[in-house]
Formats: sequence, structure tokens, C-alpha cells
Amino acid sequence: MAETDGFTFNHTMLRIKDPAKSLNFYRDVLGMTLLHQADFEGAEFCLYFLGKLQPGETPPEDAAERARWTFAQRGVLELTHNWGSENDPNVAYHDGNSEPQGYGHIAFDVPDLDAAVAWFDANNVTFQKRPEDGRMNHIAFIRDPDGYWIEILSSSRMA
Amino acid sequence: MAETDGFTFNHTMLRIKDPAKSLNFYRDVLGMTLLHQADFEGAEFCLYFLGKLQPGETPPEDAAERARWTFAQRGVLELTHNWGSENDPNVAYHDGNSEPQGYGHIAFDVPDLDAAVAWFDANNVTFQKRPEDGRMNHIAFIRDPDGYWIEILSSSRMA
Repeated sequence: MAETDGFTFNHTMLRIKDPAKSLNFYRDVLGMTLLHQADFEGAEFCLYFLGKLQPGETPPEDAAERARWTFAQRGVLELTHNWGSENDPNVAYHDGNSEPQGYGHIAFDVPDLDAAVAWFDANNVTFQKRPEDGRMNHIAFIRDPDGYWIEILSSSRMA
Repeated sequence: MAETDGFTFNHTMLRIKDPAKSLNFYRDVLGMTLLHQADFEGAEFCLYFLGKLQPGETPPEDAAERARWTFAQRGVLELTHNWGSENDPNVAYHDGNSEPQGYGHIAFDVPDLDAAVAWFDANNVTFQKRPEDGRMNHIAFIRDPDGYWIEILSSSRMA
């Protein structure tokens, strides 16, 4: 359909309480790269855009080119941080899986589910569902620092 | 980092009330393709996996191969339908932007923002924010049939 040629599902946005914890988690545990950051000083919030690059995939180094590149990709995660929320005991985000429901989760494909589980355990990641829990033993769910659910699957085992 | 090589941010899951309305919207208005569907008859729900393919991009035709291909892609949208919700006046999903907040939106990059807005108007899409509303005139937000927000941006205009 000509009208939608070039439309690209670019990103998914989640609000986060503490960027130090979330950036550590998404970078160090899931291997994502911080591609672009936008600070809004007047409104006191910051947006972080992360992508999981594949080996050999290199975004442009120039900041403006890199921003345009980021917004043209698929599979980008946007994290929104309202300044100070990390020190505000009243801020806790809703994961969408208790009432009121809506959003459910994001999902990562991994080459080897057992190796990924061992890696998450080595990094003290919280599991919502380990592979051996319940009936769907070919997938797991972990939780990010805000409690959002992340499905872990291995595409080679899906059908 | 070797432990995360091959990790891929595959999909984002949203619950939907009425698959007829949502599939029409994501296919006809946003140009996505239904890549894989999984019916769970015992638990009475269905999962729809959609991707926005680029011209010339062709998923495998064999169903099992196509499923594995789908779960290895970036930028897949999973829609979860609990059977009967379309006829249940008590089912309405939470968009994450009113309290309790958490999830915010998904976003599509479009080649031409003005042309995309005209296309959405021609399809009677509800706008959360037209480009001319507020200060960020280079982006818009539309709403899907459940009210989830979808940011519309043009990567060539981002920096």
C-alpha cells in the first residue's frame, strides 16, 4: 500500500524511576546500546533510546546523524525519566499486568535459553517465570528494575 | 559482550479488546502484516504477531519457518485477545498514560509527516496530538482502537 510504504515500527516507550539502575540493566544484562539521549531541562525529564545492535552493526558517530539513524530503526526502547523520581518514595510505575491491565511486556529472542537463564542468574535478575515454572517451558519472563516483564524466548524453538 | 551476542529486542505486547478492529487498524492504516497467529483453545485467548515489512522483505511461507522468522525479527507487535472481550462491556484496557502510569506508547517513523497525517485523517483516525498542537510540531500522536497512544515521527526531521 503506497500510503504506508516506509512506515517503520521504531520504538516502545516505558517510564522508569531510576536511570542508573535501568541503564545498567538494559546495557549490561541485555546488551543494549544507548543510541540517543534527549534532555528537556525546562520540563525536567530525559529520554533514553536504546537498541540491541548485532555484531558489526555500527550507528553513525555524528550526534545528529545518529539521532536520525536511531529513529529509523526497528526495535528501539525509549526510557522516560522524570528528574528526581529515583528519590521520590511515591513514584512506582505500573507494569500493566495487574489491574488496570493493558500493556503486557517486551520480549527478547536469545540464541540459547539455558545460557541466557544462567547469565540472568549470574546477574541476580528477578524472574517472573523461570522456564521450568508452569507449562510453557520454552520461555521465561524476567523483570526489569521497575518490575516491567520481559519475555525471554529462543526463536529456533518457536513454531 | 559474548553473553548477550544475538539477543534481539523482538516484540512488544498489548492487550486488545476486539481483534477485528485492531487488525484492521494495524494492517490497513499502519500497513503492518499479520506474520503469525497462535490460538490457545483451552485458555481461550489468541496472540497475533504483526510486523511492518519493507518493500521486498518476504517472510517464509511455511508456517513453522515463518514463526521462527517472526520471533527473530526486531519491531514485532504482539496483540493479545481474550476471547469474548469484544462483547464484554466491562473490558476496557488501560493506556498507561493516566494513573497508574507506566507504559507510554509505541512509535512509527514515517517518510513524510504531513502525508501521514492526511492518510490518518482519510481513515478517520483519532489524534491524541496533531502536529500543530503544542510545541513539538514535528511529531503527532494517534490512538489505536483501544486508545493506546502511537507516536508518529519522521526520522529525517529528528536531531
